[in-house]
Amino acid sequence: MEYFDVKPLYFDYNATTPVLARVFEAMRPFLTERFGNPGSGHMWGLRAAQAVARARAQVASLLGASPDEIYFTSCATESNNQVLFGLFQGEGHLVTTAVEHPAVLEPAGVLEKRGVKVTRVPVDAQGLVSPDDVLAALTDETRLISVMLANNETGAIQPVAEIAARARERGVLVHTDAAQAVGKIGVDVAELGVDLLSVAGHKLYAPKGVGALYVRRGVRVPPLLHGGGQERGLRSGTENVPHLVGLGEACALAAEALSHEAERRQGLGRVFLEGLRGLGFSFRLHSAEAPRLPNTMSVGFEGLSAGDVLSGLVGWDVGASAGAACHGDVTAVSHVLEAMNVPTKFAAGTIRFSWGRLTSEDDVRELLHRLGQVLTSLRP
Amino acid sequence: MEYFDVKPLYFDYNATTPVLARVFEAMRPFLTERFGNPGSGHMWGLRAAQAVARARAQVASLLGASPDEIYFTSCATESNNQVLFGLFQGEGHLVTTAVEHPAVLEPAGVLEKRGVKVTRVPVDAQGLVSPDDVLAALTDETRLISVMLANNETGAIQPVAEIAARARERGVLVHTDAAQAVGKIGVDVAELGVDLLSVAGHKLYAPKGVGALYVRRGVRVPPLLHGGGQERGLRSGTENVPHLVGLGEACALAAEALSHEAERRQGLGRVFLEGLRGLGFSFRLHSAEAPRLPNTMSVGFEGLSAGDVLSGLVGWDVGASAGAACHGDVTAVSHVLEAMNVPTKFAAGTIRFSWGRLTSEDDVRELLHRLGQVLTSLRP
Repeated sequence: MEYFDVKPLYFDYNATTPVLARVFEAMRPFLTERFGNPGSGHMWGLRAAQAVARARAQVASLLGASPDEIYFTSCATESNNQVLFGLFQGEGHLVTTAVEHPAVLEPAGVLEKRGVKVTRVPVDAQGLVSPDDVLAALTDETRLISVMLANNETGAIQPVAEIAARARERGVLVHTDAAQAVGKIGVDVAELGVDLLSVAGHKLYAPKGVGALYVRRGVRVPPLLHGGGQERGLRSGTENVPHLVGLGEACALAAEALSHEAERRQGLGRVFLEGLRGLGFSFRLHSAEAPRLPNTMSVGFEGLSAGDVLSGLVGWDVGASAGAACHGDVTAVSHVLEAMNVPTKFAAGTIRFSWGRLTSEDDVRELLHRLGQVLTSLRP
Repeated sequence: MEYFDVKPLYFDYNATTPVLARVFEAMRPFLTERFGNPGSGHMWGLRAAQAVARARAQVASLLGASPDEIYFTSCATESNNQVLFGLFQGEGHLVTTAVEHPAVLEPAGVLEKRGVKVTRVPVDAQGLVSPDDVLAALTDETRLISVMLANNETGAIQPVAEIAARARERGVLVHTDAAQAVGKIGVDVAELGVDLLSVAGHKLYAPKGVGALYVRRGVRVPPLLHGGGQERGLRSGTENVPHLVGLGEACALAAEALSHEAERRQGLGRVFLEGLRGLGFSFRLHSAEAPRLPNTMSVGFEGLSAGDVLSGLVGWDVGASAGAACHGDVTAVSHVLEAMNVPTKFAAGTIRFSWGRLTSEDDVRELLHRLGQVLTSLRP
């Protein structure tokens, strides 16, 4: 009965991460006795407000920002929507890329229908945009460039710092969706030079349902949600205190572990890639030549269907993802691989493996073993 | 050293409630081992998706709705913003009231600046709108009536069912912000006859940072947040699974306890009111003649300043609220009391007391004792 005894292997950290035990313990008081509303002027409220202030400082510290530049949101999708719908009504020009997350591409599409001009800069075969192409797209009407920091599917890291430096000379605001980057690689708003940056809690060991938006001091973004005026008016709605505390703690833990963990995860990637080569199946590592996240490998198995591989893995209690797991069981070739012009024979069999804090080298070796079984069973 | 020994007394349940232990226990697995993204097609994802489906059914059940009519949001503020910004761009006519929560009034103000016509129906001295007045405000351009179910400050319950019945004949959609009502009184979407209804988690013993929106089958509201297409496209963003589970459990617990708790809380209110009368200070109970929530009393102490009373109570470790605690330490007379034309000598000294599931009769008697001390110390 080996089937029922196998240890579940989670290789889908880019879809969502577990909440670290220390993060959960930091949150717990705010789900039990410390339940106050930070807007209340009494003991319960003040304790909650203090906790929110501490969390804000923790997030700011990880990003090299000031606490007053950090605004909490309910998720990175909201952060991205906040930026795009805040800065555009029905006019102006937005420059973005063809490989953004739907949380940027979909709002961009809505804005386009409302009269905003949108340029989606293409990427090369490695999934990278060229700063020259981004800069060449600017017009007198351009208000914002939105380029993701790390791609959720391939892990490719875009040249955001160079884009931001050159955009600054042109007086254009730059936003980066850093949902997949924060906590995995060093993300410093000063080094990046961006004006706006989106953070997702559940990609860095905080719970789902919390995000943040960095807004450089002096940059004004009108609010998306209106009401009680929380978050200094940018984001109304009673603060999700436990989750904010969790995000703060997760950022503190990420800061502690960052360089060691990045190296360790890169090492796991080397083990995985070598092992893959040893399995004897034809595959292609997407964005292989690009700078990439240390925890992500998007692998196209030649001539196979991603759905079949994934089903096989599910049968072996392996969690991975075909396309971007954030948005359902889409089996069509992802817009990212399409933008990279990946040949269909590799694109259609693409699986994203992503690992993290709780992944050991043994897990990787066990993954390789099970993957070998699955691929063998699918051999034509 | 009695001062340091007093038991904290929380009488600010309308600002936020504690998370019930059973709610926390229901959430806990989803903050620990069951951490999957509901959008993932593997074991982790499926377990999370099942939990979300169960929570949706629990919310639906409390409201007498179908699960497919329930959409999760990050808070009631978002639910309200979703409705108003979803249904209006820059034209049409919105009918609302003068006593809504800022999460309705502020979006309405923004819409007005964008070209939407907005009518704010006044209330009588009891804080109630007249259905006749609401209906008289309708024009051919009216798309939506938004009338809160229970007022957060006074607890006054508006005649939403009558308004909805008459609006239906006119073919106008009706939304109610039921943030303060759900879990305190029976709220049934069929009995109310509304098309849209907002729910706040943290007013009914679920955590802060989760809400829901009921959308009657057949009613179409365009999304506010765009991205991965979660919540059947209405609300993108990875689901806050632990909080959704918490809201579901809180709704199940509310359904179990509703009639008993409503009666018990009303009894506590009688004890409080009798005790207040016995203290020998002149006061006025706002909305005294209106149907009211069983847990809320907004009391104007003649000739006193609410800030002074509240500070005195804080010194006695009593949590209460002047104005609506959801949005900061506003000491000005609230827009609700202003709309009710409450004489300043009572309005300026108004404190909202609200109690709930964990409040005992002893707590109320102790509150009366401490309040007596505070009022005596402030006697001119």
